[in-house]
Amino acid sequence: MIQTITGDTEFIESLRGKKATLLLALSNTKTANIQGIESVSQNQLIPTITSEFICTGQIKSLNINPQKLSKATHITRKVHTKTPFGRIELLDLGLETKPKLNYFTLHNFDITMSQSIAKGADIDAQVIFEKGINFGQTYQCKDEYIILGESIPSGTLTAMATSLALRYKNKEAFQSSSSNAVEESVLKLALSHINDKDELFTILGKVSDNTLIFNAGFILGLNNSIPIILAGDTHMASLLLIINRILKLMGGMMETSNLALCTSKCVVEDNHSDIKSIIQTPLFTINSYYVDSSLKDSISQETTVSGAAMMYSILNGLDLKNLS
Amino acid sequence: MIQTITGDTEFIESLRGKKATLLLALSNTKTANIQGIESVSQNQLIPTITSEFICTGQIKSLNINPQKLSKATHITRKVHTKTPFGRIELLDLGLETKPKLNYFTLHNFDITMSQSIAKGADIDAQVIFEKGINFGQTYQCKDEYIILGESIPSGTLTAMATSLALRYKNKEAFQSSSSNAVEESVLKLALSHINDKDELFTILGKVSDNTLIFNAGFILGLNNSIPIILAGDTHMASLLLIINRILKLMGGMMETSNLALCTSKCVVEDNHSDIKSIIQTPLFTINSYYVDSSLKDSISQETTVSGAAMMYSILNGLDLKNLS
Repeated sequence: MIQTITGDTEFIESLRGKKATLLLALSNTKTANIQGIESVSQNQLIPTITSEFICTGQIKSLNINPQKLSKATHITRKVHTKTPFGRIELLDLGLETKPKLNYFTLHNFDITMSQSIAKGADIDAQVIFEKGINFGQTYQCKDEYIILGESIPSGTLTAMATSLALRYKNKEAFQSSSSNAVEESVLKLALSHINDKDELFTILGKVSDNTLIFNAGFILGLNNSIPIILAGDTHMASLLLIINRILKLMGGMMETSNLALCTSKCVVEDNHSDIKSIIQTPLFTINSYYVDSSLKDSISQETTVSGAAMMYSILNGLDLKNLS
Repeated sequence: MIQTITGDTEFIESLRGKKATLLLALSNTKTANIQGIESVSQNQLIPTITSEFICTGQIKSLNINPQKLSKATHITRKVHTKTPFGRIELLDLGLETKPKLNYFTLHNFDITMSQSIAKGADIDAQVIFEKGINFGQTYQCKDEYIILGESIPSGTLTAMATSLALRYKNKEAFQSSSSNAVEESVLKLALSHINDKDELFTILGKVSDNTLIFNAGFILGLNNSIPIILAGDTHMASLLLIINRILKLMGGMMETSNLALCTSKCVVEDNHSDIKSIIQTPLFTINSYYVDSSLKDSISQETTVSGAAMMYSILNGLDLKNLS
């Protein structure tokens, strides 16, 4: 049920039976405040309440019926109750509202919410990147591998802007089915701030988001020392595009045998995007997978980590029908 | 299925997926030798054979059908076979008969069985307490948290005597349905030895038991350094009453964010006792829980650790119906 996108199955098989730490990278960008960008009201609270629910089964920061959370979030929570992660830790990469959690590790990096990319995100990308590098170099994982999930409203748009600004010609690889005229105009405005002579981190500071920049540093800082699975969709995959440019800038290569990506079937089969082409763009190669679940009401969203979460359950002996 | 008595669910959620060390505090008091106090013959062997059975699935120190052990003991054993504890270690706090176990750590503290509280328990409470403090300060847990269970015949009676002697007016909180005339007279005799000018440890030495005194020291010695779940009924809860008096005596407070209690539904719903009022009596607060199992033949006894054991199973992904 775990299918290969790129590479082969041995990497994922080597993790069978092992406990993982779920790291949830959470941030906000004011891009999501633009009317027409996000449909859910209080959308900026999504990373906050999603992480609260995955950790505890309850929402604390908003009076809302948990049923309104995405199916992907519910699946991830269910995975944690059936085949628990070793622990869940949160990375605050510029949240507007911190989760109301006292017993879960919330890593704080003094990062603030970024501006809308429509007028320039105003991120000190070099600083955020170095915070990520430092975290990767010093992080002591208490389990055998890391699953890196994320939640950032408007992430698809910042990922697309980042990729285009970095001169990848792959707009169609990100084109989600929900894209609309407002998003198009925001994208155009974002790219209009980029000058030909802008350096890499200047570009990222204008059009990207804290999560992508920090996680690029985090991956490089880990330096292949522990298996890590990127859990997500095209936003998460675009991290690889940033790392690719950073490696080019530094004239270096990166050992990637411990780096993988896992997503869900609906992402791989989405006619409006092409995650495989994103994964195959960098000079380095990674193993990547998706979970071919036969759950009824197949998941229509991959807002957080449900593909990798289902994979984790499979690797720990659960029949996926027990998740439905 | 894990329900809150006091506090909220986040503490227990933070332990999901983590392995615990089960520490079994075992002792005897001659109080249980008094005819009419305990119904089971060879009742002083209960801590010995219970711990043997939980550890190995066999009874070694008595020729008895394991079915005669309490349902709670069987559930705890089943939990250990389905979702194993990281390890089980035993604390010999004055056992008449040591368990016949060679491969399980049996912590020895040179503590002897206490006398009947009817004539004065004759415990050097200061010494036992300091042994507990020392153990808490030096104990290296090899798992992520501790579940502290206990077994001591006549424990409810010594707990009740301890609470009343410490001038809590809460006899009804301990009044088990099985209390009888003999117990009443033992209680009266026990309290008759207390003088108005007796200091705290003098009182404890007369009417309490090794387990309560040692564990009070153990908790204070741990000093909130690792999550610990008190697994038990009103006897275990009365530990909090002792700690409360010790803190008052020392003029200090204790950080209790890592201290919790877990019991089973039958204890919470018992019309003849009130564990919640005991938990809420001290000046400090803790999180406390019970497991709302829907097991048929609901458990009629909480002699050891079955509530917390069921909780441990839930936190490690087991459906409770697999325990019945």
